[in-house]
Amino acid sequence: MMKDFRDKGRKPRFNRGGPKPRRFEKSAPPNQSQPKARPSPAPTMREDRRPADRASAGNEREIVYGVEPIRELVAAAAATIRALYVKSGDERRFSPEINEVRTAGGRVEFVDDAGLERLAGQAARHQGIAALMREYEYAPIEEILEHKPDPVLLVDGVTDPRNLGALMRSAEGAGVGAVVLARDRTVGITPAVVKSSSGAWIHLKVARCGNVARTLEQLKEAGYWIAALAAGGATSIYDLDTTRKLVIVVGSEGRGVREIVRKGADFVVDIPMRGKVASLNVSVAGAVALYEIARRRAESARTTGS
Amino acid sequence: MMKDFRDKGRKPRFNRGGPKPRRFEKSAPPNQSQPKARPSPAPTMREDRRPADRASAGNEREIVYGVEPIRELVAAAAATIRALYVKSGDERRFSPEINEVRTAGGRVEFVDDAGLERLAGQAARHQGIAALMREYEYAPIEEILEHKPDPVLLVDGVTDPRNLGALMRSAEGAGVGAVVLARDRTVGITPAVVKSSSGAWIHLKVARCGNVARTLEQLKEAGYWIAALAAGGATSIYDLDTTRKLVIVVGSEGRGVREIVRKGADFVVDIPMRGKVASLNVSVAGAVALYEIARRRAESARTTGS
Repeated sequence: MMKDFRDKGRKPRFNRGGPKPRRFEKSAPPNQSQPKARPSPAPTMREDRRPADRASAGNEREIVYGVEPIRELVAAAAATIRALYVKSGDERRFSPEINEVRTAGGRVEFVDDAGLERLAGQAARHQGIAALMREYEYAPIEEILEHKPDPVLLVDGVTDPRNLGALMRSAEGAGVGAVVLARDRTVGITPAVVKSSSGAWIHLKVARCGNVARTLEQLKEAGYWIAALAAGGATSIYDLDTTRKLVIVVGSEGRGVREIVRKGADFVVDIPMRGKVASLNVSVAGAVALYEIARRRAESARTTGS
Repeated sequence: MMKDFRDKGRKPRFNRGGPKPRRFEKSAPPNQSQPKARPSPAPTMREDRRPADRASAGNEREIVYGVEPIRELVAAAAATIRALYVKSGDERRFSPEINEVRTAGGRVEFVDDAGLERLAGQAARHQGIAALMREYEYAPIEEILEHKPDPVLLVDGVTDPRNLGALMRSAEGAGVGAVVLARDRTVGITPAVVKSSSGAWIHLKVARCGNVARTLEQLKEAGYWIAALAAGGATSIYDLDTTRKLVIVVGSEGRGVREIVRKGADFVVDIPMRGKVASLNVSVAGAVALYEIARRRAESARTTGS
């Protein structure tokens, strides 16, 4: 289940033969402009994924259903759809989606209600349409070590897809170029994450790492300073030296960053709480920190430029 | 369903006879130190809420279940629980919760698995415990107009309880004293909101308003400046004049602030997006804006003080 892409050295791809190759056109540092890590077809998996064969229906990791989620997915990344399942009789209604998916290299099948229920789950409101996604292809961590986007967000322990999606959306909005997910403790790029991220995942390089402590060491060797976000940390986010190349680490929803991450961090960074609650939601804390870093860097660029 | 508390002039209460009267002890301006709006008992509703009578099981608006959610709720606000339902045989395991709820004036009943399933829903993992909450008692808007906490957060259209809970948590963390919810378009203080807010709701004065345009006018008359958060707004959050008394308005998840709110606002405030996604999640946008206001005010207080 846990495949390691790190040593393969292959180039990640997006959209084999699809109509909309989206590239990474940051106006930020030129070293961020690499090709994107994208889901790519895995033809060997096709045969055993047909609806009739699926014993476990409604697998949350691979099936997206419902009109709006499918339309969003098709608009954002039609090439990530391995197969589109449309209710027989609804061909005309969904013809734009059908065409987009076919053009992007996906398969389209027409099925009955029972087939859609097997896919989406009996209780699910599939609304006549469902999609089976390709497996997401993560970027190798070496790409980040080599190209050094700044800042990097490292997520160690976020298990709620909505939190990860919101984090990715905020990170992309704050100008983050790359995200590293701790493989064993963090949810991967599932349809729920894709949905919550509002398309942000498309624009982010996402890698996974196995051993977080070792990855932090590698990032330090590559010139990064590690800032772990933790309530009560010794360094206020407003005092963090944002001229350094930074990795922002967020921990799990319940327990925050682990001790091993605190030990590996150069700074344990606090967001001052001005009320009575002890901490922020992990995706909010990440957003506040990343926006503050972006604000300070923009200000510093303005000051230097004038 | 939509009761109007505004004209009743009654004082909101918290925790009738409970062991932990939590008050509003902001270190911020003294005019924020008012008694809290609290859920209060509504004895007339008791009889028809017994599990055996409930035709519609698992009502999301009133039932909380599961060990952790119940423990959090009991720790944060035992007095908000009208009735605690404990699986027969689990009395010892849940004795701290049972005692707290009884002390705070709630009823405790011992039921079998079928009773818990009727309450929580058959698919729900109730883990032997569920609670029926009291109706939340909102503060009258006049209290906010009179005491003028600063800033105020006005929520017009957030329908996802998790987004509202996260917003409340962030708002409280950023030092916001009061929240106003648009009654017709925004979810109320439901158990899901309480859970997502991580206890923040306890410390916030929450009012509801019917006519948002009229409420904005009332707030302006009370000395507030209205800042509506909207992607592409003319005023950057980093240029907003934070020396004014501010109401921050956030709109719905999908469509943002309405035209009528934009028209009633003194500033339409943008959070600069540094990537390719067009906007932030509403709870993240609210958090980034409120934290930036808090940061600027703290900095200005430091500068003035030195």
